[in-house]
Amino acid sequence: MAINPSSTLTLDQKKQTAKAWFEELRDQLCARLEGIESEHADKGEAQKFIRTPWKRDKTGSTDQGGGVMSMMHGNIFEKVGVHTSTVFGEFSEEFRKNIPGAEEDPRFWASGISFIAHPKNPHAPAAHMNTRMIVTTKCWFGGGGDLNPMMNKYRSDSHEDTIAFHDMMKKACDQHHPDYYVKFKKWCEEYFHLPHRDEPRGVGGIFYDRHDTNDWQNDFDFTKDVGKAFLNIYPALVEKRADTPISEADIEEQAVRRGRYAEFNLLYDRGTQFGLKTGGNVDSILSSLPPMAKWH
Amino acid sequence: MAINPSSTLTLDQKKQTAKAWFEELRDQLCARLEGIESEHADKGEAQKFIRTPWKRDKTGSTDQGGGVMSMMHGNIFEKVGVHTSTVFGEFSEEFRKNIPGAEEDPRFWASGISFIAHPKNPHAPAAHMNTRMIVTTKCWFGGGGDLNPMMNKYRSDSHEDTIAFHDMMKKACDQHHPDYYVKFKKWCEEYFHLPHRDEPRGVGGIFYDRHDTNDWQNDFDFTKDVGKAFLNIYPALVEKRADTPISEADIEEQAVRRGRYAEFNLLYDRGTQFGLKTGGNVDSILSSLPPMAKWH
Repeated sequence: MAINPSSTLTLDQKKQTAKAWFEELRDQLCARLEGIESEHADKGEAQKFIRTPWKRDKTGSTDQGGGVMSMMHGNIFEKVGVHTSTVFGEFSEEFRKNIPGAEEDPRFWASGISFIAHPKNPHAPAAHMNTRMIVTTKCWFGGGGDLNPMMNKYRSDSHEDTIAFHDMMKKACDQHHPDYYVKFKKWCEEYFHLPHRDEPRGVGGIFYDRHDTNDWQNDFDFTKDVGKAFLNIYPALVEKRADTPISEADIEEQAVRRGRYAEFNLLYDRGTQFGLKTGGNVDSILSSLPPMAKWH
Repeated sequence: MAINPSSTLTLDQKKQTAKAWFEELRDQLCARLEGIESEHADKGEAQKFIRTPWKRDKTGSTDQGGGVMSMMHGNIFEKVGVHTSTVFGEFSEEFRKNIPGAEEDPRFWASGISFIAHPKNPHAPAAHMNTRMIVTTKCWFGGGGDLNPMMNKYRSDSHEDTIAFHDMMKKACDQHHPDYYVKFKKWCEEYFHLPHRDEPRGVGGIFYDRHDTNDWQNDFDFTKDVGKAFLNIYPALVEKRADTPISEADIEEQAVRRGRYAEFNLLYDRGTQFGLKTGGNVDSILSSLPPMAKWH
């Protein structure tokens, strides 16, 4: 039997390793997006991310962790948030029942990265990516990434941007298990769906949760590969569309589609509901909302 | 013992009487708002309400009632909906438990009016009013009205618009019971509150539900008086503010406040959640959302 190198890491080392990766990925994403902004300085003064740290216990009397909210309001990325957080404490009685491994012991630790971008040009897609490691008496990863084109002509499985995004996600999956892509793509489709309108939020991607194959190192590497794949493809897709000429009708279509995005996040998104109910940082949680939306 | 005239009405007559009132109030509100629009024809072509009927059973194979959605996109009222509906059928198992009188028998009948206005001028307040009669094995009324100024300088208990609105609601209440206003004002404050921001949605008004004093006629008259009070005061408040000069900053403040309004309706409003989960008319339910909103 091969020695599994992950078995040599203590739980504490695993936590620190995961946390360091989420923060490294945050730095890489911010640097990549700031690079795109500075290449388009003709559109206005190049913007940078502004980082705002927050603590879960605002009174400061206990240490329950916290995070850093990174926001940029750029000329290409009209509103983009890249947030990292590492929080710990005890789940409420109400929550414990629904969380694996929390029934026996309410203590939890969670670390992750969350990315949401709303580009200015209506031809450039919005996107979301989030990965996290959660520890109760069990330990698992979750996350995913999905693409949200704003205009109908891009909202198709056969559009080249959709294909490019899914190809990259598939590659990340295929490195770890031949079944992952099909399974996690389906999960994403089911999750990012607006039942009241019976329409998908975007063109999908992958979504996974409670992911624990009993091989921490491989599960962690998979989570890293998802982040790297997203970093590889999403900024490139925005770059490709950022200079497309736009019409009033395009802006209008984007504004209405952004309204649907807000509907999903406020009505259905579990991360939003979970965050608001567990005293998360309201500013980071709601930073996913589009800069502007219309409902006719 | 005095003869209670309402006792002479059959349940069916009560239903028809209430339904007719909600539709009459709809007609009066639409006429009043269209009147304001035509008095401001200098701002652009005067607009009228467009009425769109809908049926609860879209297949048409059963009669489960329906309603009429009335929308206007005016020069004073940028987006306003006045909807009436009369629906009936059976509650699902899941819903029955939480509805008075539905545990024994799942059948229900409900009729009501719902009004939501988002005026164009940021100095003019948005507002919501809704009254309804619901019949299971029990029969009750519910509803209320609240004022939602968009700019901070109007969002105070001591502002003259707030005082005028509350005075009118208090008068409607006081005609029926000395305790109603205090009780229903408090209910409104508790209900129209955004817990995640710990801020009120607006400056309040009144809210009541499951209202059954065992005197149908008086409960119905109270519900009528709430509607009449709203008709008396709200359009007048908008008229008063519709010509106030505005700045870019005012429009910005309005757009951000409208975002909070959308947050409340999508995250917390029971009518919205109830409607979307029970196959209500998505267009009418979500017509409460502001025409435009911003999240910085």
